[in-house]
Amino acid sequence: MSPKITTELLKQLRQVMKNPRYVQEPVQAYIVPSGDAHQSEYIAPCDCRRAFISGFDGSAGTAIVTEQHAAMWTDGRYFLQAAHQMDSNWTLMKMGLKDTPTQEDWLVSVLPEGSKVGVDPFIIPADQWKRMSKALRSAGHDLVPVKENLIDTIWTDCPQRPCKPLITLDLSYTGVSWRDKIVALRSKMAERKVMWFVVTALDEVAWLFNLRGSDVEYNPVFFAYAVIGMNTIRLFIDGDRMMDPAVREHLQLDSTLEPEFKIQVMPYGSILSELQAVGAGLSPKEKVWLSDKASYALTEAIPKAYRYLTPYTPICIAKAVKNAAETEGMRRAHIKDAVALCELFNWLEKEVPKGTVTEILAADKAEEFRSQQKDFVELSFATISSTGPNGAIIHYKPVPETNRTLSVNEIYLLDSGAQYKDGTTDVTRTMHFGTPSAYEKECFTYVLKGHIAVSAAIFPNGTKGHLLDSFARSALWDCGLDYLHGTGHGVGSFLNVHEGPCGISYKTFADEPLEAGMIVSDEPGYYEDGSFGIRIENVVLVIPAETKYNFKNRGSLTFEPLTLVPIQTKMIDVSLLTEKECNWVNEYHQKCREVVGAELERQGRHEALRWLLRETEPLGRVQ
Amino acid sequence: MSPKITTELLKQLRQVMKNPRYVQEPVQAYIVPSGDAHQSEYIAPCDCRRAFISGFDGSAGTAIVTEQHAAMWTDGRYFLQAAHQMDSNWTLMKMGLKDTPTQEDWLVSVLPEGSKVGVDPFIIPADQWKRMSKALRSAGHDLVPVKENLIDTIWTDCPQRPCKPLITLDLSYTGVSWRDKIVALRSKMAERKVMWFVVTALDEVAWLFNLRGSDVEYNPVFFAYAVIGMNTIRLFIDGDRMMDPAVREHLQLDSTLEPEFKIQVMPYGSILSELQAVGAGLSPKEKVWLSDKASYALTEAIPKAYRYLTPYTPICIAKAVKNAAETEGMRRAHIKDAVALCELFNWLEKEVPKGTVTEILAADKAEEFRSQQKDFVELSFATISSTGPNGAIIHYKPVPETNRTLSVNEIYLLDSGAQYKDGTTDVTRTMHFGTPSAYEKECFTYVLKGHIAVSAAIFPNGTKGHLLDSFARSALWDCGLDYLHGTGHGVGSFLNVHEGPCGISYKTFADEPLEAGMIVSDEPGYYEDGSFGIRIENVVLVIPAETKYNFKNRGSLTFEPLTLVPIQTKMIDVSLLTEKECNWVNEYHQKCREVVGAELERQGRHEALRWLLRETEPLGRVQ
Repeated sequence: MSPKITTELLKQLRQVMKNPRYVQEPVQAYIVPSGDAHQSEYIAPCDCRRAFISGFDGSAGTAIVTEQHAAMWTDGRYFLQAAHQMDSNWTLMKMGLKDTPTQEDWLVSVLPEGSKVGVDPFIIPADQWKRMSKALRSAGHDLVPVKENLIDTIWTDCPQRPCKPLITLDLSYTGVSWRDKIVALRSKMAERKVMWFVVTALDEVAWLFNLRGSDVEYNPVFFAYAVIGMNTIRLFIDGDRMMDPAVREHLQLDSTLEPEFKIQVMPYGSILSELQAVGAGLSPKEKVWLSDKASYALTEAIPKAYRYLTPYTPICIAKAVKNAAETEGMRRAHIKDAVALCELFNWLEKEVPKGTVTEILAADKAEEFRSQQKDFVELSFATISSTGPNGAIIHYKPVPETNRTLSVNEIYLLDSGAQYKDGTTDVTRTMHFGTPSAYEKECFTYVLKGHIAVSAAIFPNGTKGHLLDSFARSALWDCGLDYLHGTGHGVGSFLNVHEGPCGISYKTFADEPLEAGMIVSDEPGYYEDGSFGIRIENVVLVIPAETKYNFKNRGSLTFEPLTLVPIQTKMIDVSLLTEKECNWVNEYHQKCREVVGAELERQGRHEALRWLLRETEPLGRVQ
Repeated sequence: MSPKITTELLKQLRQVMKNPRYVQEPVQAYIVPSGDAHQSEYIAPCDCRRAFISGFDGSAGTAIVTEQHAAMWTDGRYFLQAAHQMDSNWTLMKMGLKDTPTQEDWLVSVLPEGSKVGVDPFIIPADQWKRMSKALRSAGHDLVPVKENLIDTIWTDCPQRPCKPLITLDLSYTGVSWRDKIVALRSKMAERKVMWFVVTALDEVAWLFNLRGSDVEYNPVFFAYAVIGMNTIRLFIDGDRMMDPAVREHLQLDSTLEPEFKIQVMPYGSILSELQAVGAGLSPKEKVWLSDKASYALTEAIPKAYRYLTPYTPICIAKAVKNAAETEGMRRAHIKDAVALCELFNWLEKEVPKGTVTEILAADKAEEFRSQQKDFVELSFATISSTGPNGAIIHYKPVPETNRTLSVNEIYLLDSGAQYKDGTTDVTRTMHFGTPSAYEKECFTYVLKGHIAVSAAIFPNGTKGHLLDSFARSALWDCGLDYLHGTGHGVGSFLNVHEGPCGISYKTFADEPLEAGMIVSDEPGYYEDGSFGIRIENVVLVIPAETKYNFKNRGSLTFEPLTLVPIQTKMIDVSLLTEKECNWVNEYHQKCREVVGAELERQGRHEALRWLLRETEPLGRVQ
């Protein structure tokens, strides 16, 4: 990996920072955040502006360029990568280390008095703007919005914004029509006494209209905004996509509809001016609902007194609670995914001893088996295929420089998933193709105990996911072990593999309570640097639990695993399991046999079926 | 209970609200919060202004009086009591109910345009002032500080502010001299680059100077402030207390000391003017450290740019981590406390069947036994002595109207504690003096399992207490049960029975991580309205744990019970315990026998010793 030479680019950027064509007044610093205008976790190539200007292409990082300096803030996952990818023009700011200044403090320390700091107001979320603006102002500087993105002005071979065809999802996939979703949204708006709702997150637009796209890798979304009024629907979207007869039919664009369901299609780029027009026309007490993570540009379009900001939008919360059609779709997707993984693991078992299977080949093979399944669309994230010490790198993705060959002497960790038209999967299994050591089995078994403790937990309605996090760690803690990541995240239904508003983590972010129908991952792990990584991940559905009593009539919840892939019994030290845990494993494997076994049979995959049957033999409990 | 007639009082208050002798401009509303000028949980009679004006004397509540209205906000614990104690001049605002307006919203709805809302700036914490002021300002009103407390102007028979003699604590109790505490504080100040620290909480003043008082019932504190500079110490305190030779000697008031340890004693009432003088004399970059819960008056004395506010002060954090002398003192106090409770329970066992023991008598008897112990000072809170349905009232305190007779047919819950010169205790035991039902035993056993799950938990250094809360609930949750309070609170060392900055709760307040030496309570429960209450509470010390491995060299922690009072085995359904839980009970009881048994023996309390031995027979595990 050689660093990107950025001397010329930085020179150009510093010129446009003073060019009156782009800035009203020269800016002495320019901030280049990671995100896109929708605050997406995964972004399109045309939005990788920070990678373009610096060379550093990790998933998290903020660049700031001043007349004299160029600095990059990123976190511990990327210190090495950023140092390799950036040339000497750049200073690496290692976030999380004690002596690393914050962006604000650093700016204050390097800027001449009364400086202007520019940023694209579409890329910076309103809450971040507020924090940074306040800090700069108190030091005598100004944060200013620069309308034209300055990176775009110098990025001559910038890829086009993707504008791929849309997929329409009928009721059998979504369970609820977009009209009914609009009705439900308007009723939430009425409850909160707001007149307008602005949909800025890409997965929220996709969910609301029962449409999917492929503008961003791994996430079946498309670039669009929507503004929902009590009597109007405006969809801001580009391209010929609205010419597609299936889409026109789906959105009933050519039908005679009640006016409140008539969708006005407008250019993607007109969102700001349209929203400003909405903002200008508000009467007193007419509020506009926005996510507090919406861009500064869109938030500012609404006068402050008229804004109604919440951390989670009503769409985010409704989307998280899957209906029967979505749940059934997720079940189907997970069965197909399990079939693909049974094929893969059966293949690996035969091939690994030959010494010819690399991490990349294994990942490719996993994709190949998945792609054979009905309604497969794409992967849901970059496959983590890692063996031996690579397994200890939590966000590892094999590349030629690191690509290791699987062997019968090392633990193999595969964290992978796919988008099917009926659901999204995300599963991690940790396997040994030879004979694991007693210590490896011991660690695996603690992780398994944690996995089961969450999966089998019973808890009252209204419980937030972060209250379950310690259950996943208790067995590891007892022996002085732990893992440095959260335990679970929300999973979309043929949508983003990471979604809010719920999760299971020791970090007390403002998660919403778990509700029946929500879907999260359960993925404790254990990682030993330079040696191995273990993680056991199922996607689980929140379901009502039957309990002996029912305190205050609150009702109880528990989880049902949707993922149905065998957990390698060879890795389990059965003597460390309680009877209850042992039964859990056996019942889980029995279900894998019945459900996935039937599908393997149906698909005529007899060898994989034999593998499944062998891998799901009941554990004999050591007394 | 008949309500207090407040017509005349309210008329007087409304007059002073317009009287230019007290207010610069008339105020259209006056807020009477619960607290004192130190944001204490327990307050002195002279600070019970809200109870004086309204009649309602529960521990939580805020009164607001306007020209037309008088309203009282309180929470679910006090709806009934407030309704009984207040006359028809008052409107009860039931906090937590959906339709109850916030104080701000209510004020905005009833006030004429451009009103002034007055409050005593010494009583309202700065963070509350900020919130309320902002809300009122956005509606065109003003929150204004009224220097003279308006309730005091009409409270003709207001009790005097207590000014009781001080107790000096030598090194054998405190482990660290006040000089060394000042040195440590100054080093924390230097770390944060602050020049001044203002001590506003009463327990922080007491801890810092190794002094105790009795100005407030149950809390061995005294009215005082302190302002610590890098070279100066100012103590604001009233009365002859500084005339006491023991105190003068302790504080070395008459010795020739290095100037930086010379304590300047100043009148309690001069804190504001002295702090204003400090504020006026600050050079740029000289910061003043205050708790963000300090009063608005003191916070305002320091110009905004010079304030350094934190939720927990360095004293609060240092105070929470007990040193060896404090820990040993706490151990001694808990042994004496256990002796008293063995005597009590032995006595109850004989007396209850006679039908002559009421809740009040039992509470008095508990105090009597405690007062026989060395270094006993007073109780640490109002004893919760409750039988049958009264046990389900979580904050119950027996009064003649509710006083129930203990019987062999009902569960008895006793939550009580004391201040000894060497430590503070807080213990809850739930007993049956007849034959408990299978259901009562079942519920008790779930609570016990939760108690053990916390007490025996092993967790990494740096873990916050709220991550342990679910361990206490898991056994209850499995059966659909729960309890609606937190699991634990910090406990002072011969100081307040409730102290920050750590605790164990599902509410994610900003608790600090648990550290070896911290002391918290472990008190899960189960309550069945109208029927019974169960709670099992020990005070536990955070200690290092030995573990098989040591991930990232972080080290692990666990708890050691300081409370050593038998847990009634008659109430345990042994078949519901795991082997590990059974062993925990037996080992705990073995320790009670050894440690408390030896002390009972030493004190010649043979009957109570026989009771202890009988109550601590090992459980036989049902296989």
